[in-house]
Amino acid sequence: MVGGGQGAFIGNVHRIAARLDDHYTLVAGALASTPERAYESGRRLRLARERTYASYEEMALEESKRDDRIDVVSIVTPNYLHYPVAKLFLDAGIHVICDKPLTTSLADAKDLQQAVAASGRIFTVTYNYSGYPMVRMAREMVAGGCIGSLRVVQVEYCQGWMAEKVEDSGSKQVLWRSDPEKSGPGGCIGDIGTHAFHLSHFICNERAVELSAELSTFVSGRRVDDNAHILLRFENGAKGMLWASQVAVGEENGLRIRIYGDGGSLIWTQENPNYLLYSQRGKPQQRLSRGGPETAAPGTAHSGLPAGHPEGYLEAFAQIYTDTARLIHAHRESRKPVSSAQLAPGVLDGIRGVEFIEAAIQSSANAGAWISLKL
Amino acid sequence: MVGGGQGAFIGNVHRIAARLDDHYTLVAGALASTPERAYESGRRLRLARERTYASYEEMALEESKRDDRIDVVSIVTPNYLHYPVAKLFLDAGIHVICDKPLTTSLADAKDLQQAVAASGRIFTVTYNYSGYPMVRMAREMVAGGCIGSLRVVQVEYCQGWMAEKVEDSGSKQVLWRSDPEKSGPGGCIGDIGTHAFHLSHFICNERAVELSAELSTFVSGRRVDDNAHILLRFENGAKGMLWASQVAVGEENGLRIRIYGDGGSLIWTQENPNYLLYSQRGKPQQRLSRGGPETAAPGTAHSGLPAGHPEGYLEAFAQIYTDTARLIHAHRESRKPVSSAQLAPGVLDGIRGVEFIEAAIQSSANAGAWISLKL
Amino acid sequence: MVGGGQGAFIGNVHRIAARLDDHYTLVAGALASTPERAYESGRRLRLARERTYASYEEMALEESKRDDRIDVVSIVTPNYLHYPVAKLFLDAGIHVICDKPLTTSLADAKDLQQAVAASGRIFTVTYNYSGYPMVRMAREMVAGGCIGSLRVVQVEYCQGWMAEKVEDSGSKQVLWRSDPEKSGPGGCIGDIGTHAFHLSHFICNERAVELSAELSTFVSGRRVDDNAHILLRFENGAKGMLWASQVAVGEENGLRIRIYGDGGSLIWTQENPNYLLYSQRGKPQQRLSRGGPETAAPGTAHSGLPAGHPEGYLEAFAQIYTDTARLIHAHRESRKPVSSAQLAPGVLDGIRGVEFIEAAIQSSANAGAWISLKL
Amino acid sequence: MVGGGQGAFIGNVHRIAARLDDHYTLVAGALASTPERAYESGRRLRLARERTYASYEEMALEESKRDDRIDVVSIVTPNYLHYPVAKLFLDAGIHVICDKPLTTSLADAKDLQQAVAASGRIFTVTYNYSGYPMVRMAREMVAGGCIGSLRVVQVEYCQGWMAEKVEDSGSKQVLWRSDPEKSGPGGCIGDIGTHAFHLSHFICNERAVELSAELSTFVSGRRVDDNAHILLRFENGAKGMLWASQVAVGEENGLRIRIYGDGGSLIWTQENPNYLLYSQRGKPQQRLSRGGPETAAPGTAHSGLPAGHPEGYLEAFAQIYTDTARLIHAHRESRKPVSSAQLAPGVLDGIRGVEFIEAAIQSSANAGAWISLKL
Repeated sequence: MVGGGQGAFIGNVHRIAARLDDHYTLVAGALASTPERAYESGRRLRLARERTYASYEEMALEESKRDDRIDVVSIVTPNYLHYPVAKLFLDAGIHVICDKPLTTSLADAKDLQQAVAASGRIFTVTYNYSGYPMVRMAREMVAGGCIGSLRVVQVEYCQGWMAEKVEDSGSKQVLWRSDPEKSGPGGCIGDIGTHAFHLSHFICNERAVELSAELSTFVSGRRVDDNAHILLRFENGAKGMLWASQVAVGEENGLRIRIYGDGGSLIWTQENPNYLLYSQRGKPQQRLSRGGPETAAPGTAHSGLPAGHPEGYLEAFAQIYTDTARLIHAHRESRKPVSSAQLAPGVLDGIRGVEFIEAAIQSSANAGAWISLKL
Repeated sequence: MVGGGQGAFIGNVHRIAARLDDHYTLVAGALASTPERAYESGRRLRLARERTYASYEEMALEESKRDDRIDVVSIVTPNYLHYPVAKLFLDAGIHVICDKPLTTSLADAKDLQQAVAASGRIFTVTYNYSGYPMVRMAREMVAGGCIGSLRVVQVEYCQGWMAEKVEDSGSKQVLWRSDPEKSGPGGCIGDIGTHAFHLSHFICNERAVELSAELSTFVSGRRVDDNAHILLRFENGAKGMLWASQVAVGEENGLRIRIYGDGGSLIWTQENPNYLLYSQRGKPQQRLSRGGPETAAPGTAHSGLPAGHPEGYLEAFAQIYTDTARLIHAHRESRKPVSSAQLAPGVLDGIRGVEFIEAAIQSSANAGAWISLKL
Repeated sequence: MVGGGQGAFIGNVHRIAARLDDHYTLVAGALASTPERAYESGRRLRLARERTYASYEEMALEESKRDDRIDVVSIVTPNYLHYPVAKLFLDAGIHVICDKPLTTSLADAKDLQQAVAASGRIFTVTYNYSGYPMVRMAREMVAGGCIGSLRVVQVEYCQGWMAEKVEDSGSKQVLWRSDPEKSGPGGCIGDIGTHAFHLSHFICNERAVELSAELSTFVSGRRVDDNAHILLRFENGAKGMLWASQVAVGEENGLRIRIYGDGGSLIWTQENPNYLLYSQRGKPQQRLSRGGPETAAPGTAHSGLPAGHPEGYLEAFAQIYTDTARLIHAHRESRKPVSSAQLAPGVLDGIRGVEFIEAAIQSSANAGAWISLKL
Repeated sequence: MVGGGQGAFIGNVHRIAARLDDHYTLVAGALASTPERAYESGRRLRLARERTYASYEEMALEESKRDDRIDVVSIVTPNYLHYPVAKLFLDAGIHVICDKPLTTSLADAKDLQQAVAASGRIFTVTYNYSGYPMVRMAREMVAGGCIGSLRVVQVEYCQGWMAEKVEDSGSKQVLWRSDPEKSGPGGCIGDIGTHAFHLSHFICNERAVELSAELSTFVSGRRVDDNAHILLRFENGAKGMLWASQVAVGEENGLRIRIYGDGGSLIWTQENPNYLLYSQRGKPQQRLSRGGPETAAPGTAHSGLPAGHPEGYLEAFAQIYTDTARLIHAHRESRKPVSSAQLAPGVLDGIRGVEFIEAAIQSSANAGAWISLKL
């Protein structure tokens, strides 16, 4: 693991996710940006001292020399480090699990795509919301024609925790997120908007080809956007609305998607994720539950929990790890991975997220002009 | 009443609304576009034969001659008749309750505004959703500073009943709604989008000054839009998203508004209208219920029903009628009406709705260019 | 109308309910227990002075002499007056709509049943919750076999407004409700428990044959029960639980019923009454909406409102009035009334409610001994 | 671990729960009732062959001889084995985590209580629903006086999966559950009723002192109850209703509790467990969310997930494991454990569950006579 030491939030989530299905053991890490904090973080996680590294460069170098070297590295640093760290480990022949957004510029992202291709390694991006069982079921249903031809996508991701100037609190979380040098030019659009964007592609399997955006910064003194209103046009003619906000007081982690086709619709809400509302034209609305009747989604990989036993955020996150483990197993055995593993978001999903951020910023700077998305 | 004969939907709603609070008696009507249907409709409603008219022109002429002439006329015709009918009755010195949208062109709407001013008569427009008690409470709360300074407005009105080519069914309802000659150039944007637009103004008391629109027609052969994606900019710098759709399969009458200020937020949903979700920054979400604790909204005028006794669409519609009755009483007695009555939507609300439709069409025809709203 | 003058709550509800479908005109009344308040109440309702009576005895006497005498009387007095008033008007050959519970003793109730039979008049009891469209649909579905053979009934009616000693407020509403002389021996069990009991019979069409009860009075100084826990055994072997409470802080008007058969289940909640949740064994839960797809229930009689336009308490109450009007029309024309009208609760439903109250009190006084219900 | 081999459900849940917070490593097991299945199950879990035992007797014997012997054993067998297995390991000086219900008879349960006391070992029972953060918050709130003096408890646990004769399917899960020799005399009452009973004690911290029960078996040929209707009397005078059912078609895992005091109320629903509805007398209902504003409950031990990131069944289950680990650490260091750990259900909770089952069966066999609960 690179990053994720003391004071970090997402690092611990990655570790639990890795542990949940019993496919991973954490054996090495460059956990923090100073040697002291890196060593202390490693000690707390009971890492061997010799595999607790002072820097990611050292880690890549030393691990690549070991016989028992790591199979895969998790990159959970601030965004601006994703690119150099990922590249170094790919070059060392090590598989990569990388947090999103992929990089802080589209040029870096494309470069990384080439590095992945050249390395022949597995590379997954933790668009973790795509790991929810009912999200995967929604994707399957759309692919199977359950809603007919796609017409309208309404997706939103709203939070309220940045409604005031939390930057002044001194929290590490907030500091790097609101610093364009570390998180990239997008604020809310990059931090959560990319999740919403990915989710709509993941479920609908239809590419957005143009967008028009209105980005706003409501909190005075903030250096990045904190609210994004975006219109989308999809390849097949469908239209979409995407709302991302971090100033929506009262909202906690409100990722929600509603998709409408000519024959039916699906609604999924992250905060109550075990259900999917399904309407067919001329029929009453059905509530499909994870593990419930007529449901293809039996739960995330590890649990197989029956209906009514709620699964949550960690289980969905773990699904991406399990998918990656399965991809690595298949890679090692030179066979095709199981189909669910192939759903793990890859480098292409990563690049599209970066293109989305850049296009939104460009459109917003040009009075909402429609910008093409090409990837 | 003009319009509202056999086969009409909204006419009966207006009649119940008028009756609910016992302020009105229906005594005269020009209920249909042919004399036969007009007479038959009048007979069924137990109107006196002599006050059942073959045309609205006849009705305006004859009623204006009577000593016991009508106080007020309800106009519930297809949209294109609102203008000539309203004008004729205003000229005859009769108060007017008119369905929305006000007219089929902005020029007509402005002309009507002048006619109202010249006549000195009461003129209300049935933006009926503003009659819900919790909508009025939301307005009061916003005015009282409960959410602080307005930042984001998310409003939507989605239905699914036109997801297929219902025009082919031959239903009168559908036919005039999808005929630009009768309903005006807007389809979904005029029929339901204007309700959403009005609601956001009514609650927030903040004027939208610019919009960018993407109108779509998904059903092949349809002559008007059936989905509208609109971005709004408000006078104080707030930003909004408005979605109106009649092809959202599974949605019934999904009018919903969420407004976020720097200090709090409010959420209201028409399909479960007795509740308002209120969040203050740093406090748990509260569910305010009509008639419940700490609630200024005791129910619509007529009922005073305690909390937990749900009120619905008819009660809210009746509120507009009661407000109008109170305006007329005050007008007769040359005094100021009670404050709730002053909330009844008037001709200015009507014109703004028409301007909204025209601006949306113009923006959509120009790749989403931002169009100013001036009224 | 007898009762329902100034300060009364339910009288106004009855008047709106009567007006809603345009089958009734209020022409006479003995509206209060003193002549002064009776006259003043009549004046406010614009009753003719000569038909505003000082007492119900006078009203029955005088009306029975008139050629244009009333067709039907609404009895909306405190409970202890239902019996003498109803009897007097039946004897005068006038149809009766009576509030619930029918009487304050089972003996009176049985006597009234005979009086109804002897009079040949229409007699309905305002178990108003049975007027909701989705309640009627539930009944139809059960009758049609949608849930299979009935096994379990969970019904509850919980309110919180009497959690403190509201008797001390001096409100008329509370005073008679908590006075056994005026409301009968049951408190919560009579006021709201009977509604829950009736609802379960109405929907399931299965008779409870035994009950075991635990009544409690939580508020010190209260003279009647304020919480009732009751077990039910139905004729076909099904088992039930009934909870009624007026001390459930936070609850407003929480009438809810869930019924389970061997093949399916239905859930209905009064506070969001336009929906019915339906599960079949091995199928996802469906949300049936009033006026929606595959729904037999098009709305209450008057409105025919489409799905998504919520109907509420007043509309359901009006349904009982409309049913009664239809029964009276059919009676006048000596023909069978339409089937929906036959669903109006009658005197037998009224007696059963009184038997239920007495049995619950008896069981509770005997450590929850099972008491037979015979009617 | 004893039990939990191939084909078992709850064993895997225990293993994930143990792993989640990184306090446990699985090193030994007697996983199945035949040596072949035991070895094969051990192999799949990558246990060392020498610590994969053919029987629990062998495991207790061999482990107690080892220097690196297990600290704690998880007992996840069918109910009838809890007693002998727990006793053997306690005698060997090993801490125990035992599934519920504790034993199949009250005599065994009391005997086990003595064995626990004599051994001085940590003994926890996986009443896992008490591990949910919002359940713990509810307990804290009640203790802190947030609802005032307790009056009414409505608790229910309803499932539908046994609505038909699933015993005929041959599933191991069902077979032992419906066999009184293996699961004890209670069916639904033991399997899920005990969870509901424990939850009400856990949150309210008020002991039920009497119960009256009506147990039913709806599915023909079933050997144990599948529906339980129970009335409760609490020590302080509060009254309760408990409903447990496995024939409630459409219900999945419907554990829900509502508690009402003279000053407020709390509602919690397992299927959407991250929220708690809180009403104070005279105030609007609040929705408290895990990790949200004014919430003491930051999430389960391991995660610290912020509000809106749903936690579920596994996290709550893991909490019991983490609590136990903390108890063991404190035991080892002869200090007081942290207070949250002390909330872990212990042997007294276990015995009370067994007493509850026996009392319910006795009451039901005696026409619902009130039976005292003494423990």
